[in-house]
Amino acid sequence: MSEYFPNVPQFQYEGTSSTNPFAFRHYNPDEKIGDKTMREHLRFGAAYWHVMRNELGDPFGAGTALMPWDDGSETLQNALNRVPVFFEFLNKSQIDYYCFHDRDISPEGATLAETHKNLDRVVDELEKFQGETGKKLLWGTACLFGHPRYAHGAATSPNADVFAYGASQVKHALEATHRLGGEGYVFWGGREGYATLLNTDMKRELDHLAAMLHLAVDHAKKIGYQGQFYIEPKPREPSTHQYDSDSAACLNFLREYDLLDHFKLNIETNHATLAGHTMEHELDVAIGANALGSIDANRGDELIGWDTDQFPTNVYDTTQVMIRVLKMGGFTTGGLNFDAKRRRESHEPEDLFHAHIGGMDVFARGLKIAHKIIEDGRMDAFITERYSSYDSGIGAEIESGSTSLDSLDAHAQSIDPPQLSSGRQEMLENIINDYLV
Amino acid sequence: MSEYFPNVPQFQYEGTSSTNPFAFRHYNPDEKIGDKTMREHLRFGAAYWHVMRNELGDPFGAGTALMPWDDGSETLQNALNRVPVFFEFLNKSQIDYYCFHDRDISPEGATLAETHKNLDRVVDELEKFQGETGKKLLWGTACLFGHPRYAHGAATSPNADVFAYGASQVKHALEATHRLGGEGYVFWGGREGYATLLNTDMKRELDHLAAMLHLAVDHAKKIGYQGQFYIEPKPREPSTHQYDSDSAACLNFLREYDLLDHFKLNIETNHATLAGHTMEHELDVAIGANALGSIDANRGDELIGWDTDQFPTNVYDTTQVMIRVLKMGGFTTGGLNFDAKRRRESHEPEDLFHAHIGGMDVFARGLKIAHKIIEDGRMDAFITERYSSYDSGIGAEIESGSTSLDSLDAHAQSIDPPQLSSGRQEMLENIINDYLV
Amino acid sequence: MSEYFPNVPQFQYEGTSSTNPFAFRHYNPDEKIGDKTMREHLRFGAAYWHVMRNELGDPFGAGTALMPWDDGSETLQNALNRVPVFFEFLNKSQIDYYCFHDRDISPEGATLAETHKNLDRVVDELEKFQGETGKKLLWGTACLFGHPRYAHGAATSPNADVFAYGASQVKHALEATHRLGGEGYVFWGGREGYATLLNTDMKRELDHLAAMLHLAVDHAKKIGYQGQFYIEPKPREPSTHQYDSDSAACLNFLREYDLLDHFKLNIETNHATLAGHTMEHELDVAIGANALGSIDANRGDELIGWDTDQFPTNVYDTTQVMIRVLKMGGFTTGGLNFDAKRRRESHEPEDLFHAHIGGMDVFARGLKIAHKIIEDGRMDAFITERYSSYDSGIGAEIESGSTSLDSLDAHAQSIDPPQLSSGRQEMLENIINDYLV
Amino acid sequence: MSEYFPNVPQFQYEGTSSTNPFAFRHYNPDEKIGDKTMREHLRFGAAYWHVMRNELGDPFGAGTALMPWDDGSETLQNALNRVPVFFEFLNKSQIDYYCFHDRDISPEGATLAETHKNLDRVVDELEKFQGETGKKLLWGTACLFGHPRYAHGAATSPNADVFAYGASQVKHALEATHRLGGEGYVFWGGREGYATLLNTDMKRELDHLAAMLHLAVDHAKKIGYQGQFYIEPKPREPSTHQYDSDSAACLNFLREYDLLDHFKLNIETNHATLAGHTMEHELDVAIGANALGSIDANRGDELIGWDTDQFPTNVYDTTQVMIRVLKMGGFTTGGLNFDAKRRRESHEPEDLFHAHIGGMDVFARGLKIAHKIIEDGRMDAFITERYSSYDSGIGAEIESGSTSLDSLDAHAQSIDPPQLSSGRQEMLENIINDYLV
Repeated sequence: MSEYFPNVPQFQYEGTSSTNPFAFRHYNPDEKIGDKTMREHLRFGAAYWHVMRNELGDPFGAGTALMPWDDGSETLQNALNRVPVFFEFLNKSQIDYYCFHDRDISPEGATLAETHKNLDRVVDELEKFQGETGKKLLWGTACLFGHPRYAHGAATSPNADVFAYGASQVKHALEATHRLGGEGYVFWGGREGYATLLNTDMKRELDHLAAMLHLAVDHAKKIGYQGQFYIEPKPREPSTHQYDSDSAACLNFLREYDLLDHFKLNIETNHATLAGHTMEHELDVAIGANALGSIDANRGDELIGWDTDQFPTNVYDTTQVMIRVLKMGGFTTGGLNFDAKRRRESHEPEDLFHAHIGGMDVFARGLKIAHKIIEDGRMDAFITERYSSYDSGIGAEIESGSTSLDSLDAHAQSIDPPQLSSGRQEMLENIINDYLV
Repeated sequence: MSEYFPNVPQFQYEGTSSTNPFAFRHYNPDEKIGDKTMREHLRFGAAYWHVMRNELGDPFGAGTALMPWDDGSETLQNALNRVPVFFEFLNKSQIDYYCFHDRDISPEGATLAETHKNLDRVVDELEKFQGETGKKLLWGTACLFGHPRYAHGAATSPNADVFAYGASQVKHALEATHRLGGEGYVFWGGREGYATLLNTDMKRELDHLAAMLHLAVDHAKKIGYQGQFYIEPKPREPSTHQYDSDSAACLNFLREYDLLDHFKLNIETNHATLAGHTMEHELDVAIGANALGSIDANRGDELIGWDTDQFPTNVYDTTQVMIRVLKMGGFTTGGLNFDAKRRRESHEPEDLFHAHIGGMDVFARGLKIAHKIIEDGRMDAFITERYSSYDSGIGAEIESGSTSLDSLDAHAQSIDPPQLSSGRQEMLENIINDYLV
Repeated sequence: MSEYFPNVPQFQYEGTSSTNPFAFRHYNPDEKIGDKTMREHLRFGAAYWHVMRNELGDPFGAGTALMPWDDGSETLQNALNRVPVFFEFLNKSQIDYYCFHDRDISPEGATLAETHKNLDRVVDELEKFQGETGKKLLWGTACLFGHPRYAHGAATSPNADVFAYGASQVKHALEATHRLGGEGYVFWGGREGYATLLNTDMKRELDHLAAMLHLAVDHAKKIGYQGQFYIEPKPREPSTHQYDSDSAACLNFLREYDLLDHFKLNIETNHATLAGHTMEHELDVAIGANALGSIDANRGDELIGWDTDQFPTNVYDTTQVMIRVLKMGGFTTGGLNFDAKRRRESHEPEDLFHAHIGGMDVFARGLKIAHKIIEDGRMDAFITERYSSYDSGIGAEIESGSTSLDSLDAHAQSIDPPQLSSGRQEMLENIINDYLV
Repeated sequence: MSEYFPNVPQFQYEGTSSTNPFAFRHYNPDEKIGDKTMREHLRFGAAYWHVMRNELGDPFGAGTALMPWDDGSETLQNALNRVPVFFEFLNKSQIDYYCFHDRDISPEGATLAETHKNLDRVVDELEKFQGETGKKLLWGTACLFGHPRYAHGAATSPNADVFAYGASQVKHALEATHRLGGEGYVFWGGREGYATLLNTDMKRELDHLAAMLHLAVDHAKKIGYQGQFYIEPKPREPSTHQYDSDSAACLNFLREYDLLDHFKLNIETNHATLAGHTMEHELDVAIGANALGSIDANRGDELIGWDTDQFPTNVYDTTQVMIRVLKMGGFTTGGLNFDAKRRRESHEPEDLFHAHIGGMDVFARGLKIAHKIIEDGRMDAFITERYSSYDSGIGAEIESGSTSLDSLDAHAQSIDPPQLSSGRQEMLENIINDYLV
């Protein structure tokens, strides 16, 4: 069975005393944390593009990844050959879900019809392996950014035939996702933006982008697909500017074009920080609009200005993410998809496992800490108390809408000058550190 | 008459051959550009806070500005003494408008009632000087960020009495603006955000922020104030995060809380770049929502991560701003307010004039170039042609909503692969350079 | 005794099970870690400026700090009044060292002579309290950035009389440091840089800066001061550009002007990240030149572009710092000075304690983890093995200088293409996480 | 003759009234500016890698560039086929110089010996075309960053055999440069840095880097190559950190390893801004050490955190560069090499010409303005006057080293408090704008 990764054993939970680099110290899939197992809380997903297709090249150098199972060709057969490797990876790493773009799993053909046929054939194979292994599709998507035809955008291309090409890909990727029982479908608009405003009609492009999303919503209804649609925000790269630049920009767009009922957000840590926000901020903005759908779990390097897509390794960060996931009641359709790549210097197949095991373990740890923090209640109590002046009196009147500037002016003139309580940021940061022990 | 700035003559247009540092070389106020005078196009405003109150301190050092007319006290008399100085400044610099925060023009009193009385008294004086000079108020606002009571926010303070204090200030600042014929009223929420999410209930704070804005809208109706309300986006500083972080975040908020009919945006160049956007981007986002109201004219230093609020000096930037102002038909209530400060090392009174004259001249130049670019039409024609595939055929069908993913798939399969035209960014950049000669 | 901070008990080590917010859970001063006590390893210092003088103002708002012992005046008496408060703070917090600028501890007088007399008088008082409490001076310095006279620089001012003023301050601050047994003397050149190159002669300014440092070295010799001189790198803020922008820039300057024998570096975490480097990088650059002297312990917010000077709270960071301190054999003259301020919203006196206790505890924890990592040896062994090809054969020849391009070309043509080993970054990051449990 | 770019005419100077997009409006090669022709001042170079080899891919998408002369193969024949295309490009664009990496011009062979043979064969061809056209080689270099073998560095690889491979390439690239009369040889260490300090011995790597540079210096002497060696600073990308991060870091390294007599710097605009500096700053640092050698002319997008390598289009920037080039007496071995690429959306062959013509024209304009500014003398006079207090009296004593802290203290106590003059930044910025008309 283990033919592709002979040096890598099946991951198992061995507890914190283990120093086996291929073991979980924190992720014990069937252990209950509160009312669910860790597996149910975390819903880890692997990214087909990073695991199977990322050659680890960069703008200054060729790919380094050793992939002995891949002949390097863009043939259907090579695409089919990758499928069992990927499922072996999922099995050994104990990852339950996966995600793909259409072009990760199957190649362009000589014609668009052939391209679609290639997709169908690989989807057959994925379906078979899903059945055999119990692995599931977290979400699917169409790659509308890699091919030169999308250089100026897909839905926002100035060329209407390119829009049609994009629509054709979306149709087939959506149908593939439907067939594979995908719980969601993502739009990430890497080219839906602009290189320069000197040649761009922003308003017209946004109208077209909204048109594409409405077409997808209509098509889902037509074919009976009931999964969740997501938009994934990112501020730039590859485009100089992408329209879906952060959570707020996405929500503004969805509201303007009457799409908020149909879409949630798929938030990625590195995209958050590239937009100048913390991951917690982006999550809270989405949650505030009841629009947090799924998470792309990775991290960036904040001293660097591009998408480094590193694996999550920071327990402070995963704790904050899991606090929010727990408080919103857990994922429904979404999960934690590792949209993360090994460093170019980590080019051996086992590095794939080191990377994922680290990411899973640090999220497991974040889950346990988050659960402890919520159970303990000290942090929440501090916040509740901090806003308590709005629970009665003038504060409650403000919230109920029964004041006016005149009445508030009168109130302000009638009281002693307000005295503030400390925000106690440092004390709260110390408490977080205590939970991390 | 000229008693406060004896070394500074009245600015005059002297044309490009002049080397008089106190002369305009481009701003000829009554010269027609298209159908309006330069004065009507540009509607320059001076910021009371920078001109009269900015001592040029920074976090590492004391103020340096020489202000012989100011006794340094926080008294009403000192506040009154500043008024004629400011109007002399407006006269000599030929700036037609001004803007203020309540606390720029008048001091806190021992009680809130006295604070309001101080304001009224200075407003009397401003009214008198407006009448004598013909200068006008572009917009007013309340300073809800300077006093320690607003350390945790004003509308978003966790202390409801602080909300009431803020409301009281807004009421009086709005009434002062009304009395002085102010064409707009601005909300800039420097403290309406958070220092740490560890102690913050974002959703509740946003509800309160919306409540304050609705209260202001209601009060304006009550008192018959018909000026335009604005929100001014900025991503951070002073707060770690401000809710009104960029144009899209503001629009999202205004849509969510049903305020978009009542508010437009006041966009500042340095705030745009701090948010990771170009000024043009922020303007286009606002214009796309029919929400560009006014402009805070300055510039940042993009290699530096805080609000440097430098005077505009870059003709590329002012050209792009003025192209947009001209295309939207010019300002209605808004204008170009110099929310800009001299460098701390430029501490002499005449530096105030060098700074403003430079800003006015570079905008005058940007206006002339923008007019030429629009008249010439080459740039616009390029864009029109670029999207022409949407003017008929499949593109027109996409725009009219008469397609589906199925029909677009069929179209895409029926055509030859689309060939892209170059976006010609470099050629367009060269053309812009040609207009600058 | 406890008259200034009545709500704050003496800090004590209570172990990790304690939830007392005024207790150490990790810093047990007299516990041995390896061959030294934690107190000897960490050598914590408090910053007089942040503890006693920071009113917590920011560019958009007034100070918020409650300091009931301070009458707000710039008098000698007020300066003297602060001394016992500070030493009570040091006692309760168990901090052994402190640092000051001359102007933190004593005010400018009406004349320069009076200024110096003020300093001497406060130094008497500090000397007395040092004697009574056993607290020690880690380093002193002169504030050559706050007064308007230094707006254009001190040593790099274009005004030679300003240079002389700066020299006068350095003389007296150095002598005060000498009298108080200060183990070091720091130069931080916040204004030694430029606002714009348009008015700057960089070469001449650098010559003057070097002149000042040589004058200080000569004066130390003259008065018999044998403490260590330090330069503290920072890239910008307050100046647009500071000459001592990072470790490499400082070392380049010290080498060029023949000062490297006399100066080491005082590295600050937030300054490192503002320069685009990690703290570890800056430390390694300094250590590589045998020039790491002391550390300003704080952290920045990497999503924000200015010096936030937050208290250290991240155990990943303190672990990396302490690995380096342990490996270089510990501090000699230097220590961990908390150049850190509470947030403006943490304005109550006890917040000073929360902030410092958190910083001390997270460094104590970093020390324990660093010790464990070094003892364990896995991380070091990985590195040693990684470079082992230089320990013999062609690698050893390269290191010994016995090769040429010709001989290396011949070697390269004679071997099979080299195969790389993975850098195993993800595995190493996982191991670090394991040590953190 | 014109077979590869049939749509592009020979560029000619047509003056500012022309709207021909394929004409110079400012670059009149043989026009005298001061004592030299524009051609002699500017010494434009084209980058073989961008013109001939850049397919315009990015991390999210495939190449888009149309290159009908290229069969896409990595064969020697295809490499030879590119040569006449490149020289046609140089001829039509009127660019006098070019630059290359070894792997731009010729492919890896099956063995290292074959690789070197390939290089020799293409160098024959280049030599022939240089002879026929009069075009010259500005500098050559070896590509020590693209191949997977250099993933962990070349000179700084932990694998000594990789060092030897790098040395072999340097030897042959240096000899090729010598044969082609190259005026310089560049080291850019894109991989000479680290991905993580967790696996890095920085000191040992820097020793190896210095060893490589000394080997090159020795080899040049051996073969009689008298061109100039350069190091090119860049802070990051592709490595997380590159050792040669900015001018100061390079100079520090060159001083430490006794290489400053043999190396100058090749400064690139986009690398400067990525390091947090202006281009002017980096140039002044290099000039201050008599180490400015050559310039990579491009620009970045300061709102974006990676190397965009855009063509220069900003006349403010080119003016500042040319002021410095003129003041240092012009280039000797160096020039203005367009290390710049078209946007991915500008994929047609003529976009290569739009891009270069724009870059040349904006530098020609910068040259003319810089010359005017220097001739006029107002800017220089301001600076001279600003530092005049050092030309006599106490200032001259400071410069001559005849003061001490004691004597300066006495001086400072004897004078009235110094009064500063304004730095007049805004006035100076206005003057720069006036020159731009």
